[in-house]
Amino acid sequence: MKLQNDLILRAARGEKTERTPVWLMRQAGRVLPEYRKVREKMGGFKELVETPEFACEVTLQPVDILGVDAAIIFSDILVLPEAMGLPYQMIEAKGPWFEKTIKTQADIDKLHIAQADDLQYVLDAISLTKEALAGKVPLIGFAGAPWTIFAYMTEGSGSKTFSVAKRFLYTQPKLAHALLGKITQSTIHYLIAQVKAGADMVQLFDSWAGVLSPAQYKEFALPYLAEICREVKKTKEVPITVFAKDAFFARKDLAAIPCDTIGLDWTMDIAESKALIGPGKTLQGNMDPCLLYADEEVIYRETLQMLNAFGPHRHIANLGHGLYPDTEKSKVKFFVDTIKEFKFQSNTVHAQS
Amino acid sequence: MKLQNDLILRAARGEKTERTPVWLMRQAGRVLPEYRKVREKMGGFKELVETPEFACEVTLQPVDILGVDAAIIFSDILVLPEAMGLPYQMIEAKGPWFEKTIKTQADIDKLHIAQADDLQYVLDAISLTKEALAGKVPLIGFAGAPWTIFAYMTEGSGSKTFSVAKRFLYTQPKLAHALLGKITQSTIHYLIAQVKAGADMVQLFDSWAGVLSPAQYKEFALPYLAEICREVKKTKEVPITVFAKDAFFARKDLAAIPCDTIGLDWTMDIAESKALIGPGKTLQGNMDPCLLYADEEVIYRETLQMLNAFGPHRHIANLGHGLYPDTEKSKVKFFVDTIKEFKFQSNTVHAQS
Repeated sequence: MKLQNDLILRAARGEKTERTPVWLMRQAGRVLPEYRKVREKMGGFKELVETPEFACEVTLQPVDILGVDAAIIFSDILVLPEAMGLPYQMIEAKGPWFEKTIKTQADIDKLHIAQADDLQYVLDAISLTKEALAGKVPLIGFAGAPWTIFAYMTEGSGSKTFSVAKRFLYTQPKLAHALLGKITQSTIHYLIAQVKAGADMVQLFDSWAGVLSPAQYKEFALPYLAEICREVKKTKEVPITVFAKDAFFARKDLAAIPCDTIGLDWTMDIAESKALIGPGKTLQGNMDPCLLYADEEVIYRETLQMLNAFGPHRHIANLGHGLYPDTEKSKVKFFVDTIKEFKFQSNTVHAQS
Repeated sequence: MKLQNDLILRAARGEKTERTPVWLMRQAGRVLPEYRKVREKMGGFKELVETPEFACEVTLQPVDILGVDAAIIFSDILVLPEAMGLPYQMIEAKGPWFEKTIKTQADIDKLHIAQADDLQYVLDAISLTKEALAGKVPLIGFAGAPWTIFAYMTEGSGSKTFSVAKRFLYTQPKLAHALLGKITQSTIHYLIAQVKAGADMVQLFDSWAGVLSPAQYKEFALPYLAEICREVKKTKEVPITVFAKDAFFARKDLAAIPCDTIGLDWTMDIAESKALIGPGKTLQGNMDPCLLYADEEVIYRETLQMLNAFGPHRHIANLGHGLYPDTEKSKVKFFVDTIKEFKFQSNTVHAQS
């Protein structure tokens, strides 16, 4: 089915677009009263993720309500370690928790390399959503980056320092590579299956990239990200985004792996990031989610400043992190509308590019 | 009293030193069994901080046990907001918690600008420690940076996002400046009092610098840091260190304020930081605290790499964050000894400088 709006795909491929496309990380979620209503019907977050009809319903909501240029399948990066043999619970107000964690070679040996049908419920949600979208906007699939999945599998929960996961890297580097290899293989299977089920592009979330040193990121994160991009693209040439939150130090290295788009957070200066990354990649981001607490005048001013700093091409507008749940829906809509209505002045375009 | 070891003061002033001096953030703390013994005698962390004899005892411990080149007074950055009228509790395994937080102009009006004698127990601990040190090594005093203190006073606790504190900046910028002004005045009084009581140098901890955007850091953090440095130095020319954790984007701006030393965390590349900051400041840091989980061979190799990257002058060796409580004391000692025993080869020195 031909897409009616393929702005995001064209922007990701480096083609010129009539305007800057926009979507928001966590656009399907608590910010929308419509989501909270579906959520109340379900037992909890995981039940929602695991029920394709409901995952599809909440995935579609922001497309209709906020008018964003893409849907992103409602799911969680932790479905993958679960498919590999480490089940997790999502504890209200606390976050994810794993009853088993990976400590030894034997633990790694016991892990299963995930295959497509291990995550059939996600693939079903993607197929359903793709059909329901009827070509309105592209559908984004996603997975966690291997380091971030490794961090949860060894730490067992969120953490400010991820010192257990990092201890593993420092004390058992060979074992760490073995585990990262298994996660990478599983992720490749998973993302290829998502693309086959209908995902038009995919994103890798490296949420805990920022706790590593630059040298560790080079050793334990980048090669696996590159491998995933290469292998997924062998099956189908879909655009791939890598968002390595807080990894300001990895921008230049990310430019060298075969992804199409690099996500930036709000601490990363736009001009500096463009210079570091070069013209070969599309950039995604990077507004501070807290800006959406401000009044419309401030949101408008800061959004225009962001758009002008990125320039008219190779930019997918987004936040620099997921939407915070206490953001007002009307402010989110105002941010999206501001981006969609903005026209680059041709003089400005020349001055910026 | 003349100091027997003033390496750290000389390094901070940019003078050449025979070897690289070293101390560790959180060197007095749970890593030392000797600390845990004192702690067991007390009711809790706050009682320890508020009892000068005990604060003095644990401040001295790492000087004797680890052989570091400075003592840092055992205290907490949150004693200042408490002195201003916002009492806090330190909740085991959870961190600090404030029962009242700042929301309105009226809340700010009610705050007291802290004076020296509001924190007499810290000053007494400094005097006692200074006397007990008998000139062995310098004593470091400290305070939180205004933005970090503001973040706790408005958020009321630690947070991954500090979205309440940032919402304040975006929605009530004038009020935010009024509060930052009061915190700054209090901090100036407090640090001058610390210096008068015997602190040989002082450090400002901007622990939550990294959640701000570069533009917000310029507006809400840097001017107050600069004001504190200027005002403290009017009373006495003590070296001042600013450690803005995760604020990689502020390195160049920090080089322009009248501090002497800039702290780096382990995500900040050393050569790049030197280039950004220039030769006018001493750098402090920046080993990943998780390195100390590794075996001695790895610690040795990485420590030498760090020392060589910083070069022989204008460097105070430290971690890029506080010691993690589950680090083995023997590894900490090995790290300190490696630094103290290291000799720059004159060829290397030329190649590095």
